Amino acid sequence: MVTPLLTTTLDATRSAVAAARARGQRVGFVPTMGALHAGHLSLIRRARAECGFVVVSIFVNPTQFGPHEDLARYPRPFEKDLAACTAEAVDLIFNPTAEVVYPPFFKTFVEVTGLQNVLCGATRPGHFRGVATVVLKLFNIVQPDVAYFGQKDAQQARILIQMVRDLHLSVEMVLCPIVREADGLALSSRNVYLSTEQRQQAPVLFQCLRMIQERIAAGDRLTEPLVQLARARIWETPGARLDYAAIVDFERLEPIDVLSGKVLIALAVFFGATRLIDNILVDVSPA
Amino acid sequence: MVTPLLTTTLDATRSAVAAARARGQRVGFVPTMGALHAGHLSLIRRARAECGFVVVSIFVNPTQFGPHEDLARYPRPFEKDLAACTAEAVDLIFNPTAEVVYPPFFKTFVEVTGLQNVLCGATRPGHFRGVATVVLKLFNIVQPDVAYFGQKDAQQARILIQMVRDLHLSVEMVLCPIVREADGLALSSRNVYLSTEQRQQAPVLFQCLRMIQERIAAGDRLTEPLVQLARARIWETPGARLDYAAIVDFERLEPIDVLSGKVLIALAVFFGATRLIDNILVDVSPA
Repeated sequence: MVTPLLTTTLDATRSAVAAARARGQRVGFVPTMGALHAGHLSLIRRARAECGFVVVSIFVNPTQFGPHEDLARYPRPFEKDLAACTAEAVDLIFNPTAEVVYPPFFKTFVEVTGLQNVLCGATRPGHFRGVATVVLKLFNIVQPDVAYFGQKDAQQARILIQMVRDLHLSVEMVLCPIVREADGLALSSRNVYLSTEQRQQAPVLFQCLRMIQERIAAGDRLTEPLVQLARARIWETPGARLDYAAIVDFERLEPIDVLSGKVLIALAVFFGATRLIDNILVDVSPA
Repeated sequence: MVTPLLTTTLDATRSAVAAARARGQRVGFVPTMGALHAGHLSLIRRARAECGFVVVSIFVNPTQFGPHEDLARYPRPFEKDLAACTAEAVDLIFNPTAEVVYPPFFKTFVEVTGLQNVLCGATRPGHFRGVATVVLKLFNIVQPDVAYFGQKDAQQARILIQMVRDLHLSVEMVLCPIVREADGLALSSRNVYLSTEQRQQAPVLFQCLRMIQERIAAGDRLTEPLVQLARARIWETPGARLDYAAIVDFERLEPIDVLSGKVLIALAVFFGATRLIDNILVDVSPA
């Protein structure tokens, strides 16, 4: 196995990508904050299968964390991440410092208005502004042909797809399915924060989503009773505190009364200070 | 003379630029709102001298106009602009409709915080957000090697240079000197709005700037008396109403008490509903 090329500067990253492109290789990009798990690896494998040159960025982006969030303690197991990228035959890891991505007197932010302040954005003000800004910066540095994102962060994916469309970027956006533990818990770098008891209760998010999905399959079309099902189920779960349960149109991220079209069913639940999210996307044909 | 290629779509524009790049040509870009005057032509000539392929965009950008500004009546003399571009041997004119640049359900804006709400931004809320957003979009469509801007819009240039730096764009930014009428009035597409009387008074902006520049040359270093000179001069000018007179650090666009380093001296003056701006940049060595 060959260790990936490791870059920390814009110039070295651009040179390596330009060389790959000069060889006629398609450039695939998986932006991450490190602490890679099987969800990230599924994105990397998809990129590996589709692209001649695979770039993974590992950067814990400060602008997407709120002042009371977990920026300082966010896991940074770099050696383990490097081994995982090596095993997946990644070509290039871009691992910049915050000063490279955000030079002094940094002033510029991207806002995806309308989509950024609902759902997770309501609980995490400024979060998606930080996400959109860093991804645009990373796209401009790496200049990939195609970028891979997990459906786990469905709102993030929706916002970034909108950004790419609105700013006329030439990046193809690929959304990959959520990877789960055997008991249904969606993989997340934050699952390591959970206590043994919290970990046992955490699959309740997916159980709620499955419950709703079954009701939709059985013919339910009104959203309010379905949302109430999830609320009640989280309410009765020890240690769980609901942040939001929502059923929204996936295009506009606005609540809908009656299911129709491409619909996002999304949950955010606190276990102590740890906030878990999960979702399913369903295509509901008109009844 | 060869008429420039005229494109209205993203694909046609990108194809033409890609073909030029494949021929090894450097791509120079002059974004404009049309109504081309000798100021624009000086940018185009500089681009023509430095680049193998010269792109001019003509697009009256709705998002940089306030609700009570002159979007509807902004001059759009397209045939005249086309003739001017032909005479300057422009290779490509990109002349999109608003729907091409801003497709339905458009949501994404760029904000250059700190720099965008002072000076002209204080009087025109949202203006520089609209400017930064459209220029980023145009850069992503045209993908130029170098772009040319006039110093007339000094704050705009400062904001765009910051945006390019912050977002890691690979565009070289060139700032070109202000072009003036014989009596000192800076060229502007809005000068056509002036009545005969207003036109006679309008050179007062440049007279103020020259007066301040002479005092600086004579050794003055305190800014407040210099700003007061301009205020008084505008006050006594028939038909003129001061919007702002400011002496700021060109890096931060923040007011300074004592002149030092690269300094922007900027004026905005209303004549009736028409707002004129002018400025000079001075490099003040420590006294």
